[in-house]
Amino acid sequence: MAGKERLIYLALGGAGEIGMNMYVYGYGPKDAERLILVDVGVTFPDMETTPGVDLIMADPAWVQARADRLEGIFITHAHEDHVGGLGMLWSRLGAPVYARRFTAAIAQNKMDRAGQPASEVRQVDAWPHMVEAGPFRVGFVPVSHSIPESSSLVIETPAGRILHSADFKTDPTPVVGDPFDADIFRAIGDQGVKVMTCDSTNVFSQHPGRSEATLTEPIRALMREAEGMVVATTFASNVARLRTLAEAGHAAGRQIVVLGRAMNTMLKTARATEVLDGFPPTVDVTEADSVPRSQLLVLATGSQGERRAASAQLASGKYMGLELRRGDTFLFSSKTIPGNEISVGRIMNALSEKGVRIVDDADGRYHVSGHANRPDLAVMQDLLRPSVIVPMHGEHRHLTTHAEYAESRGYVGVVAPNGAMLDLTGPVPKFAEKVETGRVYLDGTEIIGALDGVVRERIRMAIRGHVIVSILIDEGGKPIGGAWVETVGLPEVARLRDGLAGALEDDIGRELARARKADFDDDDAIEQIVARTVSRRCNDLIGKKPVCTVMISRLEA
Amino acid sequence: MAGKERLIYLALGGAGEIGMNMYVYGYGPKDAERLILVDVGVTFPDMETTPGVDLIMADPAWVQARADRLEGIFITHAHEDHVGGLGMLWSRLGAPVYARRFTAAIAQNKMDRAGQPASEVRQVDAWPHMVEAGPFRVGFVPVSHSIPESSSLVIETPAGRILHSADFKTDPTPVVGDPFDADIFRAIGDQGVKVMTCDSTNVFSQHPGRSEATLTEPIRALMREAEGMVVATTFASNVARLRTLAEAGHAAGRQIVVLGRAMNTMLKTARATEVLDGFPPTVDVTEADSVPRSQLLVLATGSQGERRAASAQLASGKYMGLELRRGDTFLFSSKTIPGNEISVGRIMNALSEKGVRIVDDADGRYHVSGHANRPDLAVMQDLLRPSVIVPMHGEHRHLTTHAEYAESRGYVGVVAPNGAMLDLTGPVPKFAEKVETGRVYLDGTEIIGALDGVVRERIRMAIRGHVIVSILIDEGGKPIGGAWVETVGLPEVARLRDGLAGALEDDIGRELARARKADFDDDDAIEQIVARTVSRRCNDLIGKKPVCTVMISRLEA
Repeated sequence: MAGKERLIYLALGGAGEIGMNMYVYGYGPKDAERLILVDVGVTFPDMETTPGVDLIMADPAWVQARADRLEGIFITHAHEDHVGGLGMLWSRLGAPVYARRFTAAIAQNKMDRAGQPASEVRQVDAWPHMVEAGPFRVGFVPVSHSIPESSSLVIETPAGRILHSADFKTDPTPVVGDPFDADIFRAIGDQGVKVMTCDSTNVFSQHPGRSEATLTEPIRALMREAEGMVVATTFASNVARLRTLAEAGHAAGRQIVVLGRAMNTMLKTARATEVLDGFPPTVDVTEADSVPRSQLLVLATGSQGERRAASAQLASGKYMGLELRRGDTFLFSSKTIPGNEISVGRIMNALSEKGVRIVDDADGRYHVSGHANRPDLAVMQDLLRPSVIVPMHGEHRHLTTHAEYAESRGYVGVVAPNGAMLDLTGPVPKFAEKVETGRVYLDGTEIIGALDGVVRERIRMAIRGHVIVSILIDEGGKPIGGAWVETVGLPEVARLRDGLAGALEDDIGRELARARKADFDDDDAIEQIVARTVSRRCNDLIGKKPVCTVMISRLEA
Repeated sequence: MAGKERLIYLALGGAGEIGMNMYVYGYGPKDAERLILVDVGVTFPDMETTPGVDLIMADPAWVQARADRLEGIFITHAHEDHVGGLGMLWSRLGAPVYARRFTAAIAQNKMDRAGQPASEVRQVDAWPHMVEAGPFRVGFVPVSHSIPESSSLVIETPAGRILHSADFKTDPTPVVGDPFDADIFRAIGDQGVKVMTCDSTNVFSQHPGRSEATLTEPIRALMREAEGMVVATTFASNVARLRTLAEAGHAAGRQIVVLGRAMNTMLKTARATEVLDGFPPTVDVTEADSVPRSQLLVLATGSQGERRAASAQLASGKYMGLELRRGDTFLFSSKTIPGNEISVGRIMNALSEKGVRIVDDADGRYHVSGHANRPDLAVMQDLLRPSVIVPMHGEHRHLTTHAEYAESRGYVGVVAPNGAMLDLTGPVPKFAEKVETGRVYLDGTEIIGALDGVVRERIRMAIRGHVIVSILIDEGGKPIGGAWVETVGLPEVARLRDGLAGALEDDIGRELARARKADFDDDDAIEQIVARTVSRRCNDLIGKKPVCTVMISRLEA
């Protein structure tokens, strides 16, 4: 049966959005391939599409149904969009998890918190060490990013070598983690790379990316010149930036306070795993009282305007004993992710009302991206010289533009969004099959499907309001009294004598009085009459058609 | 009593957000000032803070309570954030409305559609014509913007002259409307300006603004070189851009189709009021069939990603007989307003999936702003040489930065956000009093207050879900049967035998069985028991605390 084996690639998440990365590689006879999974990330909900949801993950159903063939789970780095879903989904996957030391510590923490066995996470050495996983041999190649130990994966298969770039930039001085080492990637290219699956985040950025180290001087100057307290915010997991900020504050004679759980966890883990040696000393927020404002630097979570994070709390009032005022400086050392502009603006305006000086990234001096810009993608392409480039880690337009860019430089570029399984066996990738993919939500403590209808019901209530009608039917099948209506999320309508609920009660009563006797034997029939009446009357009265729930109680003979 | 008169300024909306502009000027004895209102605008809702709301307006309560002193309403130009609320709020104000010809036509349309008397809108000539309104004389000074007839207002009062900039840019070739005429503004400055209230929208933009006319060449080239159909979107009310786009398409030999109600209304009104002479001919969408794709330009509404607008419809499928495909070009000749990035991204990804070429403003060639950038503000300052500058039309951070900029150039800059009434009588403005301001919402056909709690209830249902409990109590005050529970927007929880609702019914039944007899005489007591049980059990079972509505039906003896 030799020659019937095939090598497949399948994105379950991450090739259609920036977030919730989850990629499958498989090798073996068709429908009996041995599999590995790369990354189990999350993405974040919003009120427009996912109100009340806590986290969003790629639906692992496809690999879950084939869990007996899953040889291992490889985590490229410790950002939430790559490791955040591991704890919640691992029980559906059940395979050993491989990661480098710091990443493994974060992954173990995720497993612990979800009640899963942390011992399933195995710490592995970096390239040239290789992990054996069925027909695959996988190596973690250090690459520069904004968190320590970020790794591209070399995935060796009987059908050829894949380089899975993961998140990267070509930064010679990334402040934390390994510098970009062109020689390593060139050497891998020299051995031959069949396919590069590649980060597309910054494909629209036309200029070469800047190094994290270029921020040192501007941020030092800001810390030195600021008169009062400085608060700086960035992603909790941007460990490189935390170091850049802390070192600049330290150099300016400031004591460093770290505010926010996620940031403290990240720093603690980074220190414990020795990827952050020499990080300046920090003081507890309770000691900040005794430090003059001009000698204080607060690193705070909440760069995206999250309502409960430290930045929002500091902007709106006193928090942990700290209060911002005129003369203080607030630095957004971060990019505002599309969709978060209003939340971030809310914080800026609150700070503006306090007279706090706001510094953001408008002139590009206080933030650099952790991802490869378009010219940096070219650098990677030319070091690896893959036969084929498959863009990942992007929305559809990123994938398309990335593939076009690869083609324009003489490579074969293939757009394979979530669910488009590629057969990489031959010299040119073939579309193998369309796999059903989707999203699952962490909602409170439950995992629910995106298409369960639960969130759709919530959105409908949020847009339309909710009318609840209670009807009581006696033993003889006749309604007792009238209908009782409660409205939630709808105007009272003062011009109506008994308000909206009263008007609806009258109308429903009238309609029920008109109904045939037989209708009262049938809950569905009553519900239909009531729902139709509510919809029509609400539309007449207030121009809205609310969600309607009918509760029918029957007295039993 | 002479000398007791005062001149006041009060923003009710627009000085704290970009949108819902509404400014009051008053002159007379304290608390008996005669008033004028400038602009009655709207701003747009979002799912995060205002789900289900149709439009947002400044609460006119302060001026409504003093409507007997209101001498007139002046509309500076026909953009929604300046005129959009007129029809809905006019009945609360009841004063004559003044505007120039095209603006008046749009305003009359707003009145008509809200069932208000369009005849209350009076068409006035431009500066040097002046309207008398109590102690005020008001002139409409033509100024360049992105819509015809945009006007700064000269407001002459016994205490001195005010220049209310309204929205403006210093564009010598604005494509529609009057070019910026420095001489007029210099002449007004020569006569002496006490206070300039001034647009702050682009205070963070450091470079001089570009003229609308600079877009002509790039857009012509794009229309000429595009192979298939071109769809271009911009704000429906950006009449200047519509003209730039249509002329470029016409020059490239394309037939022009206009898709979307708002855009067609705007063009129709502009033509009828003769502010758009020479606009290229358009064809109806039903005729597009017979035009080769390469000779078609579609102007479409929905540049901000609005789900029901033409752009979204075209991106997702066939619309009005038109269907986009590979080889077509979609031009976003617009800026994405903060908060709309995800919606716009959704359209771009849908277009990307169709293989449509997407061109946006990333390199600045296809869009210019209609507002004065920072250096343009300096131009206006130095023409008018006001004693005092009061920033308006901005969020708090815009106002603050604008005031600081004015101060840095030797002017007195005063931040007066919504509700901060200024006394402008003396040489230096004084803070007069704090007025309660707020927002009202158009919700369906009702106007509701932002603090009514209606929208808060909807948001709570959207985040937490809704549990409804029906309980039936007999004539003797004892519960009949158990509780009946319906859940809306909550997971079913398959691991529970009877689902979440079943588990709650069991628990509520148990708690009610334990309740004292006296509790059953008291609906509030029952409600408390039930709500507490629902909250606690849901938190245990699914990690959420839903909104709970309890319906108690009592059989009467």
